[in-house]
Amino acid sequence: MAKLNTKSISTKGLQEQILSLNRIGIALSEQHSLNELLELILTESREFTNAEAGSLYVREGNQLRFALSQNVVLEKRARDKEKREGVTATKSFTGFYLSLDKSSLAGYVGVTGKILNIPDAYKIPKGREYRFNRSFDEKNNYRTKSMLMVPLKDSSGNVAGVLQLINARKGKTAVPFSKHFETLALSLASQAAVSIKNTLLAHELKEAYLDTIFRLSVAAEYKDDDTAVHIQRMSQYSAILAEGLGLSKTEVENIRFASPMHDIGKLGVPDSILLKPAKLTAEEFKEMQNHTLIGGKILENAKADILKVSEQIAVTHHEKWDGSGYPHGLAGENIPLYGRIVALADVFDALTTKRCYKPAFSMDETMHIIKEGTGRHFDPTVIAAFDRSMDAIMAVKNKFSN
Amino acid sequence: MAKLNTKSISTKGLQEQILSLNRIGIALSEQHSLNELLELILTESREFTNAEAGSLYVREGNQLRFALSQNVVLEKRARDKEKREGVTATKSFTGFYLSLDKSSLAGYVGVTGKILNIPDAYKIPKGREYRFNRSFDEKNNYRTKSMLMVPLKDSSGNVAGVLQLINARKGKTAVPFSKHFETLALSLASQAAVSIKNTLLAHELKEAYLDTIFRLSVAAEYKDDDTAVHIQRMSQYSAILAEGLGLSKTEVENIRFASPMHDIGKLGVPDSILLKPAKLTAEEFKEMQNHTLIGGKILENAKADILKVSEQIAVTHHEKWDGSGYPHGLAGENIPLYGRIVALADVFDALTTKRCYKPAFSMDETMHIIKEGTGRHFDPTVIAAFDRSMDAIMAVKNKFSN
Repeated sequence: MAKLNTKSISTKGLQEQILSLNRIGIALSEQHSLNELLELILTESREFTNAEAGSLYVREGNQLRFALSQNVVLEKRARDKEKREGVTATKSFTGFYLSLDKSSLAGYVGVTGKILNIPDAYKIPKGREYRFNRSFDEKNNYRTKSMLMVPLKDSSGNVAGVLQLINARKGKTAVPFSKHFETLALSLASQAAVSIKNTLLAHELKEAYLDTIFRLSVAAEYKDDDTAVHIQRMSQYSAILAEGLGLSKTEVENIRFASPMHDIGKLGVPDSILLKPAKLTAEEFKEMQNHTLIGGKILENAKADILKVSEQIAVTHHEKWDGSGYPHGLAGENIPLYGRIVALADVFDALTTKRCYKPAFSMDETMHIIKEGTGRHFDPTVIAAFDRSMDAIMAVKNKFSN
Repeated sequence: MAKLNTKSISTKGLQEQILSLNRIGIALSEQHSLNELLELILTESREFTNAEAGSLYVREGNQLRFALSQNVVLEKRARDKEKREGVTATKSFTGFYLSLDKSSLAGYVGVTGKILNIPDAYKIPKGREYRFNRSFDEKNNYRTKSMLMVPLKDSSGNVAGVLQLINARKGKTAVPFSKHFETLALSLASQAAVSIKNTLLAHELKEAYLDTIFRLSVAAEYKDDDTAVHIQRMSQYSAILAEGLGLSKTEVENIRFASPMHDIGKLGVPDSILLKPAKLTAEEFKEMQNHTLIGGKILENAKADILKVSEQIAVTHHEKWDGSGYPHGLAGENIPLYGRIVALADVFDALTTKRCYKPAFSMDETMHIIKEGTGRHFDPTVIAAFDRSMDAIMAVKNKFSN
């Protein structure tokens, strides 16, 4: 990327700048997780201004969260030390909060919405409302010199955070940030603010969607809190297995949203059968099996992928790899992959959970039963993904057990 | 906005251009309906290149939909005629489809992803794969001269549409589009492509969410197709009333999503009561009323606004303005506005629909009953919004009745 020099701005440089600003704009507009997005904003702004370090603060209510920091000097130093001494470098500290007031530099920028372009952080003129805090420098034997601090402001003027760039480099020395970069960084920051807002809104919508599915699925099955937790674990196990099988992000999300509805058809099975404490008669069992087809009926003919996947899962999650399952007795890869995944997630959760008619099995017992079922009940490929993802599976199991 | 001349690009002009490109980028990133977004893309690109006309084609599968067109010359002519003759100008024609192949100009750009910069549409050199179609010009007595056609390509190279700019103006004459604009328009178009994709994705997610709520709410109530249609109409009536009351876009969306869950608590009421053909005893009626509180229980303690609103609606949609409703006997503005809105939407739909125990009432009978209930059952302010929105209400009623 072209680095600019205020004294002689060449047309070529500016043309390139337009293109690279635009390229960044496009990258910011694309769908990211919040962390990916913040990483992108900071990396691109540092590159654009040739800054050796930088941080991003994200506004949360009346505070600024120190969300991300990059420092090529300290990172290099840590890597060198690692090579020399064989110790693993500790990651730079983030995660603390600043209150949104004028005492800190970031707070000042966040409250006033003004840019601060400081030639030397150690020589801030007396009488300014803000102060530079040297504790990070002292702890890390670092010298913060020039700083450019820019508010992340959307077009309505709302501050979503603060971008802090440190030590603009000219060769090996830190020089003040050129005046020219103020406007550019502000432009970039505004676009970043909009992207952060979009990302948070999309995230909130998905959370709301998922919570709604959980609640309504539980309600539809008319069950107790045990079902609620079962449905949440199932959803996460299924997503982990899908990820382990290398499915795309979208497919993983689809199964996360769709799997909680797998037993929705149970509302069509009489309570006398569903809750019967004794063994079902052959006829009752037949009626019980119908919950797969009833579920398919409730979810059929949908336009949305999530609902198409949920229909598939509702119908096929009781099929078995060897063809001995229901309702259609499909075998092998004739069973849709989503159904094969949920089959395992469902059984694993049933085994490891206490039910009214059985205690929770230990992990040893559970794994034994699942191994027995490999190639008979379960798809061996799904079992392999299950084995590979055991850490993530156990994390979910432990989080939700109480 | 600075207009450029390739011969002498001033630094000032480019600096301004960076800012205005960025401003456009921000505007594109913000949340819009698809139509607002397309309008914005075309207006800004025309202004940027000083083009007197332009169109936008949006890709739908293997076709290009002619989504939007602007033409200052024809629009002025139409306005003048309107003034002179008092006839209303017809809107420019859009909405037709082009197939995505190389025969048309837009198709060529869409298929190849290449820019076309044509000095004179009537003098396209022989042997080119594409042809200019003069039928629009002939019908409208218009002369298309210079054209700049740019693909809307996202960063993965997917073409989301085609931007067509017509007649770059220098004073009153149409001149060729400067080479310099090709890159700029392409940049703008890429960002537009990402924004269009984001808008469509957000729209799809919301549609999926709403469809899921419909299906699961019906499932939870364990009812037939009549309930499904009731829930959909209710949702739309409620949104129309909220709009008529001047609630914000977000509030209108919240009630649209939340209102289908109003009767979710009915799953906790025994079928013997819910489906009893005779009049309920006092005790049975008490138990029936409980569906409001059960609904509140299912939806309580949620983080998402949609679920918070749905909890409020589930609990309060049987309260009455004069305090004679249930479960809490709230009166007047002590009943949350969302509850007052859904109360009317629910009763209006019940009255105008055939139920097993009653025929559908005529609109006259229905309006008579609702007027009787104004200030007793219903909030007079909501009734006023209902009266004002009668056209939209009837459109929903007619759309879903069969």
